[in-house]
Amino acid sequence: MAADFTNDLCTPVFIVDLDTVKRNARVMLERFQKLGVQLRPHMKTHKTVECADIMTGGARRCIVVSTLAEASFFADHGYDDILYAYPLPFDKVERCAQLAERLSLFHVLVDNSAALEELRKRPLKQGKAWHVWMKLDCDNGRAGIPYSEPRALQLAKDITETTGVELTGVYAHCGNTYGCQGEAQIKAVAQETTTVTLQFMDKLKAAGIQGVKSSIGSTPSCSHPVADMAMLSEVHPGNYVFYDVQQSLIGSCSLKDVAVRVLTRVIGHYPHRNQLLVDCGWTALSHDGGGKLPTGYAVIEGHPELKLLSMTQEHGRIEAVSGKLDFTKYPVGSMLSLMPYHACATAMMHPMYYVHSNGKIVGTWTPTRGW
Amino acid sequence: MAADFTNDLCTPVFIVDLDTVKRNARVMLERFQKLGVQLRPHMKTHKTVECADIMTGGARRCIVVSTLAEASFFADHGYDDILYAYPLPFDKVERCAQLAERLSLFHVLVDNSAALEELRKRPLKQGKAWHVWMKLDCDNGRAGIPYSEPRALQLAKDITETTGVELTGVYAHCGNTYGCQGEAQIKAVAQETTTVTLQFMDKLKAAGIQGVKSSIGSTPSCSHPVADMAMLSEVHPGNYVFYDVQQSLIGSCSLKDVAVRVLTRVIGHYPHRNQLLVDCGWTALSHDGGGKLPTGYAVIEGHPELKLLSMTQEHGRIEAVSGKLDFTKYPVGSMLSLMPYHACATAMMHPMYYVHSNGKIVGTWTPTRGW
Repeated sequence: MAADFTNDLCTPVFIVDLDTVKRNARVMLERFQKLGVQLRPHMKTHKTVECADIMTGGARRCIVVSTLAEASFFADHGYDDILYAYPLPFDKVERCAQLAERLSLFHVLVDNSAALEELRKRPLKQGKAWHVWMKLDCDNGRAGIPYSEPRALQLAKDITETTGVELTGVYAHCGNTYGCQGEAQIKAVAQETTTVTLQFMDKLKAAGIQGVKSSIGSTPSCSHPVADMAMLSEVHPGNYVFYDVQQSLIGSCSLKDVAVRVLTRVIGHYPHRNQLLVDCGWTALSHDGGGKLPTGYAVIEGHPELKLLSMTQEHGRIEAVSGKLDFTKYPVGSMLSLMPYHACATAMMHPMYYVHSNGKIVGTWTPTRGW
Repeated sequence: MAADFTNDLCTPVFIVDLDTVKRNARVMLERFQKLGVQLRPHMKTHKTVECADIMTGGARRCIVVSTLAEASFFADHGYDDILYAYPLPFDKVERCAQLAERLSLFHVLVDNSAALEELRKRPLKQGKAWHVWMKLDCDNGRAGIPYSEPRALQLAKDITETTGVELTGVYAHCGNTYGCQGEAQIKAVAQETTTVTLQFMDKLKAAGIQGVKSSIGSTPSCSHPVADMAMLSEVHPGNYVFYDVQQSLIGSCSLKDVAVRVLTRVIGHYPHRNQLLVDCGWTALSHDGGGKLPTGYAVIEGHPELKLLSMTQEHGRIEAVSGKLDFTKYPVGSMLSLMPYHACATAMMHPMYYVHSNGKIVGTWTPTRGW
């Protein structure tokens, strides 16, 4: 990794391996093409047009976003069919309405009747209907109505019966796959989420509610889909385009699939406490993961003997996993390459990504930010 | 806090109480004027020109920065006498040289002879000398040479003997005050840091090295200075302009001195698990503090009964500190005000701060970012 092309980069810096990104994107696209399921990739991990183009295979259609800032950013870059997969925030209804009026397809998500009432109070112009996805909680325990509760079906009915609003889909996030270890556990959660989502779709049909799409997703479940997922309309993973150490521990990928690094330089030797300092603090690498890896807050590529023990704003303390550090191996000024625990959390800290391919920097990507 | 002026703000949003900022800045300025010590405020917490103007009392001189991006940003806005208090990074020597050639006073920091050699290899134009501060480690255990080691004096001698370089000051960061609880413990660390720094200054004089400044600092020690600090040339605290929950726990301030909040709105009720969701995840509030407060990742203003249990990218889970939540008190769409555990870490997540005074938004501040 510490190839020559990195020498000219000022650190800390977030770098993206374009070839790995393309491979991760292609594998996911082909996997769900084979299953006959629409891939609606999530943009929250990278928030860049360039990566979105790769994830959508150039279509610039059919994406999920986590913030309205992302939605506007992608719309400004010619994207359409954008699902804002976030419980409708009441302070942003007007901005949502303007996007819905401007795009062919802009979808919002609701999991409560107060949100539905907000949509009813702001009918779209030009006779358009709000495209609403209903959030179902399939044992993830974040947003959504629990699939087993009668009020889930009731909300679906209320949506279909509200003027100016149509029920486009049912959306579940199997974030509980993040507690899994290994393919078997991931598949068990994927199966359970798929089963209860499809059962809910059957309930909708039995209640006379037709033509509603279904979508589940998380990077772990979409990296190891079960056969029944072929009966879903869509899936919506996001992190897979970068992957990270966390995903490798869950079993979604191997470390060779991780497309991103934070490069950092050694800025000092402190043999009296058996530590060196690097120029990567918590402004450049997320605290996510809590430093609980055997190697601390990151995997230090090619150096299993090193541990990123702690970070302050602009400093990282590195020590030996065991024994004495051989400081001659890490001269002051030399580079270390950190594989982040959580790519989403670390990418959002960087105002620019440097993109490399075949040992050369081939461009920069600038993510959007804010809400 | 949930005054009317907040109603129009889209959340999550970082807000700054201008009057509290001004008071915090004035108190610190006056405290060290009385002691006859130059205040050189640190910009890392806020990274904005507007706040820098307040901290410097309009002087636009004599500041500390943590990144070269900050140094350039403040230089571009007419600031001078800027100390880049970071172990000289070898990839940024040329950028440092250009700032040193452009400004009247641009100071760099070194704690090793390899860094000194980098400066020697890049002499400044126009016959200028590099202004170098030597970093001394006074039991903080981050950068710096331990004050008690003979090589500390040796490095000082080497700096003074290197052509094109002058030893301007000795710099110590008493970051170990962050482990304190209460004024007495803070003062003990402040005293110890001051004593060993002054002893080192005496060693310099004894070695014939004259006219060197001394500076120590951290927000806790500068909030409770000891009398001996009057013998220092400078102090360099930064966080005090905002303060935060962490500083209140250390004993640097009380909660009423905390100038910043993250406003967030309720986006869902989940009575089956006794939780509500808010639109503040770890993109808007730092994980710093590890969620170890009795109220989780923040203090929820006016609601001691609530705990910010966990965050994902854009969601925060709030539960009751004990017992059942009364959901009628927190309608979907209503606002909650979070006092951040660590203001520096949370401020850096926001592309813009909204500034208020007397119950009105009076402006926005845009921080710089990157390295």
